[in-house]
Amino acid sequence: GVEAKGIAELPALHYREHLAKDLYYSMPITSVLFNGRSKFQSVQIFSTKHFGKVLVLDNKMQSAQSDECLYHESLVHPALLSHPHPEAVFIGGGGEGATLREVLRHKNVKRVVMVDIDQIAVKMCRDNLPEWNGGVYDDPRVEVIYDDAGKYLATSGERFDVVIMDISDPIEAGPGWVLYTKEFYQKLKRDSLREHGVLCTQSTACSVNMITEGFTVINQTLKKVRTAGQKLWVLPVCFQVFAHVCPYRIDIPSFGAPWGFHICSDNAEFLLSPDTPPGEIDELLEARLGADQIVKLKHYEGYAHRHMFSLSKYERLACEREKRLLSTDNPVFVE
Amino acid sequence: GVEAKGIAELPALHYREHLAKDLYYSMPITSVLFNGRSKFQSVQIFSTKHFGKVLVLDNKMQSAQSDECLYHESLVHPALLSHPHPEAVFIGGGGEGATLREVLRHKNVKRVVMVDIDQIAVKMCRDNLPEWNGGVYDDPRVEVIYDDAGKYLATSGERFDVVIMDISDPIEAGPGWVLYTKEFYQKLKRDSLREHGVLCTQSTACSVNMITEGFTVINQTLKKVRTAGQKLWVLPVCFQVFAHVCPYRIDIPSFGAPWGFHICSDNAEFLLSPDTPPGEIDELLEARLGADQIVKLKHYEGYAHRHMFSLSKYERLACEREKRLLSTDNPVFVE
Amino acid sequence: GVEAKGIAELPALHYREHLAKDLYYSMPITSVLFNGRSKFQSVQIFSTKHFGKVLVLDNKMQSAQSDECLYHESLVHPALLSHPHPEAVFIGGGGEGATLREVLRHKNVKRVVMVDIDQIAVKMCRDNLPEWNGGVYDDPRVEVIYDDAGKYLATSGERFDVVIMDISDPIEAGPGWVLYTKEFYQKLKRDSLREHGVLCTQSTACSVNMITEGFTVINQTLKKVRTAGQKLWVLPVCFQVFAHVCPYRIDIPSFGAPWGFHICSDNAEFLLSPDTPPGEIDELLEARLGADQIVKLKHYEGYAHRHMFSLSKYERLACEREKRLLSTDNPVFVE
Amino acid sequence: GVEAKGIAELPALHYREHLAKDLYYSMPITSVLFNGRSKFQSVQIFSTKHFGKVLVLDNKMQSAQSDECLYHESLVHPALLSHPHPEAVFIGGGGEGATLREVLRHKNVKRVVMVDIDQIAVKMCRDNLPEWNGGVYDDPRVEVIYDDAGKYLATSGERFDVVIMDISDPIEAGPGWVLYTKEFYQKLKRDSLREHGVLCTQSTACSVNMITEGFTVINQTLKKVRTAGQKLWVLPVCFQVFAHVCPYRIDIPSFGAPWGFHICSDNAEFLLSPDTPPGEIDELLEARLGADQIVKLKHYEGYAHRHMFSLSKYERLACEREKRLLSTDNPVFVE
Repeated sequence: GVEAKGIAELPALHYREHLAKDLYYSMPITSVLFNGRSKFQSVQIFSTKHFGKVLVLDNKMQSAQSDECLYHESLVHPALLSHPHPEAVFIGGGGEGATLREVLRHKNVKRVVMVDIDQIAVKMCRDNLPEWNGGVYDDPRVEVIYDDAGKYLATSGERFDVVIMDISDPIEAGPGWVLYTKEFYQKLKRDSLREHGVLCTQSTACSVNMITEGFTVINQTLKKVRTAGQKLWVLPVCFQVFAHVCPYRIDIPSFGAPWGFHICSDNAEFLLSPDTPPGEIDELLEARLGADQIVKLKHYEGYAHRHMFSLSKYERLACEREKRLLSTDNPVFVE
Repeated sequence: GVEAKGIAELPALHYREHLAKDLYYSMPITSVLFNGRSKFQSVQIFSTKHFGKVLVLDNKMQSAQSDECLYHESLVHPALLSHPHPEAVFIGGGGEGATLREVLRHKNVKRVVMVDIDQIAVKMCRDNLPEWNGGVYDDPRVEVIYDDAGKYLATSGERFDVVIMDISDPIEAGPGWVLYTKEFYQKLKRDSLREHGVLCTQSTACSVNMITEGFTVINQTLKKVRTAGQKLWVLPVCFQVFAHVCPYRIDIPSFGAPWGFHICSDNAEFLLSPDTPPGEIDELLEARLGADQIVKLKHYEGYAHRHMFSLSKYERLACEREKRLLSTDNPVFVE
Repeated sequence: GVEAKGIAELPALHYREHLAKDLYYSMPITSVLFNGRSKFQSVQIFSTKHFGKVLVLDNKMQSAQSDECLYHESLVHPALLSHPHPEAVFIGGGGEGATLREVLRHKNVKRVVMVDIDQIAVKMCRDNLPEWNGGVYDDPRVEVIYDDAGKYLATSGERFDVVIMDISDPIEAGPGWVLYTKEFYQKLKRDSLREHGVLCTQSTACSVNMITEGFTVINQTLKKVRTAGQKLWVLPVCFQVFAHVCPYRIDIPSFGAPWGFHICSDNAEFLLSPDTPPGEIDELLEARLGADQIVKLKHYEGYAHRHMFSLSKYERLACEREKRLLSTDNPVFVE
Repeated sequence: GVEAKGIAELPALHYREHLAKDLYYSMPITSVLFNGRSKFQSVQIFSTKHFGKVLVLDNKMQSAQSDECLYHESLVHPALLSHPHPEAVFIGGGGEGATLREVLRHKNVKRVVMVDIDQIAVKMCRDNLPEWNGGVYDDPRVEVIYDDAGKYLATSGERFDVVIMDISDPIEAGPGWVLYTKEFYQKLKRDSLREHGVLCTQSTACSVNMITEGFTVINQTLKKVRTAGQKLWVLPVCFQVFAHVCPYRIDIPSFGAPWGFHICSDNAEFLLSPDTPPGEIDELLEARLGADQIVKLKHYEGYAHRHMFSLSKYERLACEREKRLLSTDNPVFVE
């Protein structure tokens, strides 16, 4: 047949991923798999030429087929390797099912509870993104609950070895900013973590021009939380919810920025740091996952870990200079 | 509740209506009602903030809720008023159903055959655009056939009082460019029109910077067609398929340009021209439609007719200077 | 040499002409001739691929090389033909110099005063747009003054046969909205027009989706102005500043919309209307301009005039339904 | 005064940084400092709201005020620290003057020759970007030559301790793709480097979806170059131009991607690697620059070095799987 030419061939439908009000990525959409709104947020699943299928919540890209491995491997493996025997894992959010996929690679894991507030978003991901959640919902270790993650933790009484917060950025209109507050972290540690418990949370963009919008605030919220009335000179050690707080980040092209995370634990012995020799991480990874799973990883290994946990000078200084904390009284919103 | 702010509120999905490769309108899409591809063309139906619902075929807007009345009233009423007793009407294309709607306002009309090649496009319009085709398919005067309009005319043997060509622009990849050729017009007049028969065809954009892409070529194809071997000095009157060819146009905001049409007939007596007094048109319109239908017209009346049929100097000169014809051997494609 | 390919060839710099906040034309800029800000407004002159050179004030396109003839011929010739002996002409605004160019084609004209508030904008147009103002500033009939047009009229005491208001739209931030108020029109008629005086003003966009933003308000301001305390039943004739107010419009592709104008006069005899036979206009035009100037016109002639002055039903109805007036107390701003 | 509102306030001029044909960043331009074309390439300097001033050559961003420190510190310091006594430094390209700025921080350096082919680009940067080259051209250690870097090296006979290639990507139309070929690297090492000589070259984008466009090819060109006729089993050591080739990268927001580099040397002793303890780098940096210069660095220090030199699994694998080399016969162009 005749090949189409001219305007009929130009991309007509475009998605804009805004980094700021007038600053955005523009990418053509080849098909619209879902374009709706749940009770909590707008939910969109598109096929794109450059990033494959993408999930967009409230106009922010959550995952792209081409590089979701970077996000999900980085979110899950350092946290689980930081725990001596991670058996019970909690995932807050995680609608794509890909965080679940990475957690299930760990042979130690016996139970994973995923609590996502948005059943429509989860269902749409199950239906439309099988490439990144295929089979995970059939795994007998998995329980999926549609509820607010904070509420579940507060009311269930269950304790976990690792808690992974895979939720949307703390935007003003979004469902989840409370899950970045000092109050949440304090309660989480006290009531929901077992001994040696590890918390890992996604922590917003980390680029030189956006790092102070959310990342440094989350960093300080995790590092400097103190209870009301406490003074700095009295009990400095107690000010911090977790004894160890490790920031790290990895560049994710579809997010248009390097992306930040934090791992927190009281247990120095198992906590992985930028100084851990890459070979040790590779050995630990093999012991925990086995060669058959390791070969499926696209990004994470010893040197990748070192890469992520070694900060630049501007990142180090930005955290040091941050004075703000996220609290229920004083939320700090990402745009 | 708290109002959403920031990036979550910015429009994320945008449609581009290209006037040329790098020149386009950009408009936000509020929902995607259909985004697919039929056997013949890409078919998209969106809701937009500025133009309401829109139908897009092969990346060109065909109708927008906010101004489809301008296009459909202009396409239908001058043609039907140009015929003394329009009883049988043929619509080539017309997938939205709105051309049908306007034709059915004429009390003389006893039969309308609409032949659209694309059943999927027609079905999607029936399902999603009831505001502009509500009820027309239930009218007993209407017959809808899914086929090539040219093939139907060639094989059915049926003759009509008015033929309305409401088809896509003659783009290289599109299904319909043959329906703009001299061969089609010659055959149409000979085999498919009754005595006093009128042809009306949409004729592409008419703006000062696009008029020579298609409009002037269609104008000359209708005006100067002659059969092979004929010489100009032998039978000058016969060179022209129709004795009278009247170009006209109306600006349609959602198309980003004034839009061109042509009415053709051999019957000078009834042919409406820029010199027809507006009052006569208003009288004729009332006789044919009745006051109850006239009140539903948003654009067409006597002065609107005069407006459309009075050309500017550049339009007149552009047609006079055009040398090209559209033939099956030498198609001229719109970009 | 090797031809450049790939990204280096894509257009990198784009101008957006907004019709509304999220609805815009996007066009590539091939060069930036001026990009600055005067005391009154932002001033930009670009070269574009599709429209040639363009002048942009406060982000609204004022003229494009490809179609400025449509705007300037439409603004000037109906007004001057509407006056029996136009000798003294006032131009408010007119920074491009193209309104001046059209006025100077009229042999009757003995004096033209152009008062533009923005010397920088005028100078940049003189330097960068010689194609559309070449030589006009050397014509001994021309006087150019850099001041507020309203202030000049109020203080100079000079009276004119024709006043042409070629100023920016009445936007909130712009320098000129006062020049669209009833107070201005009343004072203008009383103090600045000679007998048989004619006023013509550009009157903002006229498309079906924008006509009520400014056009219909200007229409009613010109038509229904009455002095305070007057009642409708007392002196109905006096309510209107001018006895005759004729709206008209022409589509201008680079503006993305049909554009509106109004001509006002007390003198019915010479006022041109949609019913004036095109042949009479062509004769009058020839008498006033001469064949050597007529050949330079690209748009205006008898049928073009009829085209512009014949309104559509929606335009007629939109004006009839409008209740608002523009006054200094109650400005109505175009977005 | 009254604040401007509406369309007059929207950004009208936008720059698009294309990552691929239809995938781009869009950012508003607040002013145009230069928009021209030299004999070699298009040259644009804009002010932007989000990235400050930016330099764009052939439609690719070369530096942005907000993050040029990331690029220039990463390009210069690892290379100079990799040499035991860097006294003579060559910069190929480097038009912004910021590479020069970073080189001049090193106290060992006695002579820097910067050879940039494009005098207009360099002059425009000197005039418009003083923030990132202030004073460097007055330093007596600096010589600037406007010529082809390859030609200068070939004809001058001068040898250097460190050669830094700070040139545009190897695009088909660009002036510099020859400077990424094996022939250039072979000749450079043989004729232009002193003993212990170090080469550092920028090496195009390194993101998961673009790494194979240029980065892996440059990696293999540097790693696997052999002279014609040589066989793998004969002289394996000779196959490689440099005994040590270290890839590294850093994310640069204004480039929309992590950016790649390579350092090459025969001298293992001084070559910095991902295993060098951060503390050693910090000590070396202090010895070479002094505390007064170190405080001016925004990005580079020991952990930042480790971050950059530790590759991810996909980066490691992408390089291992690459088969192509860049040669004058078989150029591989980046889009």
